[in-house]
Amino acid sequence: MGDKGKVKVIFQPSGRRGEVDKGINIIEASRRLGVDIETLCGEKRVCGKCKVRIEKGSFEKFGVVSDPSHVSAWQQEEEKFITPEQRASGYRLGCVAEIQDDILVFVPEESRAGKQVVSKAARDIDINWNPAVRIYTVTVTPPTFEDPLGDFERMTQALEKEYGLKGLDIDWFTLRDLPNTIRKGEWTITAAVWMDKEIIKVWPGRVEDYYGLAIDVGTTTVAAYFCNMRTMEVLDTVSMMNPQCKYGEDVMSRITYHMQTPGGLERMSDDIIEGLNELVRKACEGTHPPMKKKKDETGKVIKDESGEPIMIADPEEGKTYLRLEPSDIIDLTLGGNTAMHHILLKLDPQYVGLAPFPPVVHRSLDIRARDLGIGINKSSRVFIMPNEAGFVGADNVCVLVCEKPHQSDTLQLIIDIGTNGELVLGNKDKLISSSCATGPALEGAQLAFGMRAAPGAIERIKIDPETHEVDYKVIGREAWLAYSKPEEMKTKGICGSGILDVLAELYRSGVVEKSGRFSKNQKSKRFRTNPDNPRQKEFIIAWANETSIDKDVVITQKDIRQIQLAKGALYTGCKLMMRRMGIDKVDTIKIAGAFGTHVDREKALIMGLFPDCEIEKILSIGNAAGDGARVVLLDRDMRVDAAWISRNVEYIELTVEKDFERQFMESMQIPHMTDPFPHLEGLVPEEILHQK
Amino acid sequence: MGDKGKVKVIFQPSGRRGEVDKGINIIEASRRLGVDIETLCGEKRVCGKCKVRIEKGSFEKFGVVSDPSHVSAWQQEEEKFITPEQRASGYRLGCVAEIQDDILVFVPEESRAGKQVVSKAARDIDINWNPAVRIYTVTVTPPTFEDPLGDFERMTQALEKEYGLKGLDIDWFTLRDLPNTIRKGEWTITAAVWMDKEIIKVWPGRVEDYYGLAIDVGTTTVAAYFCNMRTMEVLDTVSMMNPQCKYGEDVMSRITYHMQTPGGLERMSDDIIEGLNELVRKACEGTHPPMKKKKDETGKVIKDESGEPIMIADPEEGKTYLRLEPSDIIDLTLGGNTAMHHILLKLDPQYVGLAPFPPVVHRSLDIRARDLGIGINKSSRVFIMPNEAGFVGADNVCVLVCEKPHQSDTLQLIIDIGTNGELVLGNKDKLISSSCATGPALEGAQLAFGMRAAPGAIERIKIDPETHEVDYKVIGREAWLAYSKPEEMKTKGICGSGILDVLAELYRSGVVEKSGRFSKNQKSKRFRTNPDNPRQKEFIIAWANETSIDKDVVITQKDIRQIQLAKGALYTGCKLMMRRMGIDKVDTIKIAGAFGTHVDREKALIMGLFPDCEIEKILSIGNAAGDGARVVLLDRDMRVDAAWISRNVEYIELTVEKDFERQFMESMQIPHMTDPFPHLEGLVPEEILHQK
Repeated sequence: MGDKGKVKVIFQPSGRRGEVDKGINIIEASRRLGVDIETLCGEKRVCGKCKVRIEKGSFEKFGVVSDPSHVSAWQQEEEKFITPEQRASGYRLGCVAEIQDDILVFVPEESRAGKQVVSKAARDIDINWNPAVRIYTVTVTPPTFEDPLGDFERMTQALEKEYGLKGLDIDWFTLRDLPNTIRKGEWTITAAVWMDKEIIKVWPGRVEDYYGLAIDVGTTTVAAYFCNMRTMEVLDTVSMMNPQCKYGEDVMSRITYHMQTPGGLERMSDDIIEGLNELVRKACEGTHPPMKKKKDETGKVIKDESGEPIMIADPEEGKTYLRLEPSDIIDLTLGGNTAMHHILLKLDPQYVGLAPFPPVVHRSLDIRARDLGIGINKSSRVFIMPNEAGFVGADNVCVLVCEKPHQSDTLQLIIDIGTNGELVLGNKDKLISSSCATGPALEGAQLAFGMRAAPGAIERIKIDPETHEVDYKVIGREAWLAYSKPEEMKTKGICGSGILDVLAELYRSGVVEKSGRFSKNQKSKRFRTNPDNPRQKEFIIAWANETSIDKDVVITQKDIRQIQLAKGALYTGCKLMMRRMGIDKVDTIKIAGAFGTHVDREKALIMGLFPDCEIEKILSIGNAAGDGARVVLLDRDMRVDAAWISRNVEYIELTVEKDFERQFMESMQIPHMTDPFPHLEGLVPEEILHQK
Repeated sequence: MGDKGKVKVIFQPSGRRGEVDKGINIIEASRRLGVDIETLCGEKRVCGKCKVRIEKGSFEKFGVVSDPSHVSAWQQEEEKFITPEQRASGYRLGCVAEIQDDILVFVPEESRAGKQVVSKAARDIDINWNPAVRIYTVTVTPPTFEDPLGDFERMTQALEKEYGLKGLDIDWFTLRDLPNTIRKGEWTITAAVWMDKEIIKVWPGRVEDYYGLAIDVGTTTVAAYFCNMRTMEVLDTVSMMNPQCKYGEDVMSRITYHMQTPGGLERMSDDIIEGLNELVRKACEGTHPPMKKKKDETGKVIKDESGEPIMIADPEEGKTYLRLEPSDIIDLTLGGNTAMHHILLKLDPQYVGLAPFPPVVHRSLDIRARDLGIGINKSSRVFIMPNEAGFVGADNVCVLVCEKPHQSDTLQLIIDIGTNGELVLGNKDKLISSSCATGPALEGAQLAFGMRAAPGAIERIKIDPETHEVDYKVIGREAWLAYSKPEEMKTKGICGSGILDVLAELYRSGVVEKSGRFSKNQKSKRFRTNPDNPRQKEFIIAWANETSIDKDVVITQKDIRQIQLAKGALYTGCKLMMRRMGIDKVDTIKIAGAFGTHVDREKALIMGLFPDCEIEKILSIGNAAGDGARVVLLDRDMRVDAAWISRNVEYIELTVEKDFERQFMESMQIPHMTDPFPHLEGLVPEEILHQK
């Protein structure tokens, strides 16, 4: 043991190590030492994803004697996830075991948080050029005894005379640059003006191009669009995992983390801010030539005194590089759901998570980048999209700004499927919104083998109705199981879009009945009773030898119930909103978000995720939230639109609607009974579609 | 010698010591180690105030071997100030000698920067209550499912309904306090609103009183008025030396320090900001009960484990204490001359110091306290008064806001005497301003024995016309020399107001002629030729045995020339402005600043500092700049007035006026020849007043 109150912890196989405070749990230690362990439930001890093994032995290399007894006593909650054999070999839940003395922790493959496959490219959308920040160039006469007017007034008088900009203000940080900038430009100066009100940057001489960033802060993924503000061209799309994932996979577990951890809100906020700065750097890096190792005439790498190879720029022949720096980013817009919005802004999110779910603020905010700690141009303001109500937040406003249902005749249903489904229904006459607690099941969380869309996740599956044999494909590998050796699959679990595929196939093949129960008529050995829980039935999707986690990947009866709850919540939401609008059919369904991009529309219909609609009228609109952030970056009028939308979409709390319970119970069935599915004829075996 | 590149320096008698970078000069080292050495000229090597002695010997206590050879070579510029004898004993100029190896430096009494006697009490002035920040209390209904409106909109709707406040914004830092504050107050909340626009603080429940600070940043003195914003009562006046004094006594030497020292501007700015924070703390401390040592029943002081006495609050019986913290200060206004303004705001001041002297900005600024690093309520904005032109800055606007000449029929001449005289002439029909380079002589600087108004400074003097014998009084001692033992005087030099007294007495007694030359008819041994400079005549004011610096305090012919230049500049400014206005008499003269408070109006007239005026119409208006800052703190309309004033007072550059040179030469005479002085009859011996 090191200092008083400190213990040494080593994580394997990453090899990360360090001293941490005695008494913190292993998950907390993993965060401090930068080790990613899955914690889907946010340390609520309910997901069992954070299983780790405390090694026994003396690890002289690290000066550590480790023993399972060096952590706090076994808790009953752990029995649900850890078998007696595992327990005997040192397994514990990371969120339960508190560190009392030096330990070496092995993080098994299945508990390691993988890197998600992120794909959020920018779509082509029609945007009117009217950015909140514009640039203007003026040339002024130098001061004389007859006209000793100060630099600022000299510049603003010229800006008023040439461009009609009246009463311009200037941010103090930019004012400090003014005297030397105006002289460096020999009395020609370019000023960036925010909302015709305030000068937020000055350049010497004439400048043509300037740059902005539109960012969608998703619960799981953060995507940034790097735009030339003059040409509106998207220079680059950069994205990353939301670094808050380590505090819990869904918004509620992050809110819980805040409520249970002193300083937790600040830590989560600081992490996402650091993430945004990382995106800013990434975006700028892309405008510089790549680097290569410097070599001498013989082709030998030249090293510096410390033996490191010297790196030099390696520009492509004939290519020009913008070579932008973070301070060249002049405007930034941000969207996110209400919880992401609140956590990023260090606004206490606990009341958003508590009925009647009031947010701290609806309206949009303009916050100085420097106040937020975002390292772009220091005088710039970050535009934060407004929130609607409940969890229907700034991200949904982004979607609506982009899809403009309030300007359309078409009656549309816009669904943003995430941990919380966000629904908007209507057209230019009326728009209503609601959120439904789909839960994280559709994202793969809280399922026995659910996981993020990372390598090794099952994303497509086929089940033979005759034999109930399974074929599938995982992310990161082209070939299906049928064309692979089992050990090549390295399967780890099932991801969000895969979950729906699995259930639809289970149903289509007759493994599962429309009630969601496993059929009694099982045709393979894949159906079994859970060895540790005689009351839990399960169906094996992948055998242990096909996995990298050395155990069968199964879908349990409980998993199926979770998915039923999710799809039931979504479907109920849609139906109740339609009832509120007095309609029984929508013209089009738009699905936003990564789920929308990956989902198989047929399967979604089979599953009864949303009301019947012609399959070609079901559109995936991609990362509409990100597109919306880009729209408000380039068109300030859309900020006004956003404000209007956020206050004029009528929010409906579904759980207090009449018949909610009954509708919800009915909607859980596969396919639900209240809706005919003409389009399913031929897709599902006759006897299944029409079974009682 | 310590680390590579570091040397040890010990200052005596203060005992301050530490390691500093090799190669910096002694003044720089004194700043880093917190030792105050006089540097009137800002290290331009022209004032000779920073004489120090490098000791020779081994100082084992400090592990230092010191020798005069441990500093850089002797420079010719030092000969002017250091006699061969002094040089032999190790004397050097602190701004010249660069430290090469360990040294022990003795700072002689005369080189130590003393603490100034500051007296800037608040005057009673009429102010209309209309502060920029007002507070409002509202009670709202808690959110329900039917009305789940967010906290911010809930509060602002109530503020609009009850007080008509529309479209209120909120600073992000205050927004973060909102959700828990509104719940802590059980849905009653008090909000501080800036300019009817933005919420900058929230309190739970109902609050009545709130507080603000008005600060005048003088070149030498910084004074703060701590106000109850509801009652307009001045709770306290706190003041301090401007910590920038160590970089140079006058504005030009500080500008020079900036131009010659990388990072000098930031350092000076940081120092004044730290000073403002010190004032904020001082102001708040005054609202807490004093502390006393805790004692047991027997009256013995109780000490803590480390042996320090334990301190407890000692409230006066029946007295209530406001117990305010810096975060309770909700508004802050700042005034200062253009150079102080620029340096505080880190705006490059070099162009203000260079013809045609354009400032970086004229208009007023509202800068977040947190951006400036001022530790009051974090969302508050600091109101920075606007500048006029040249060196006629925000401080003069403060004076005018307070004196309101633009609303008066009376033709007034307002003089703010400092290092730069700032002059305003006119009434409601027209106002003109100018600044005149009075130089620092009237403040006691750049004179052989000039000093700040600190203990030991001669402030009053009488010279017998018959014997030319001298009687005087020093700051910090009630009794005049005639009623004291010589050694009790501990005289150090002559302060600003004393200088004028000295010269007037020299003239009245016939020691000096009206041309400024010493009279040939000297009656005492006090008149002599400078022992080191046969061309320099001088008159001994205090003999060495009356001083604490062990040398005769004299006034030299050169000193008299400096004062003549100062008064000539001031008088010329007044006359040229009057000519520009087409008048030959003003109704009233108002003198602002500490000089105005201390100056003997008769002596000033004898000296010809300003145009003839009935003596009872010459008014001292005290620290009008500070009063002006207080006016704009409590009356927002006066901020509009200030803006109007700053742009509508016509600035005149005197040096380019016709006849400037001739007028200036004439004005240097005592008393000048262009103006009859009826009021002086009887004050000055007949033969002197009427001599040619």
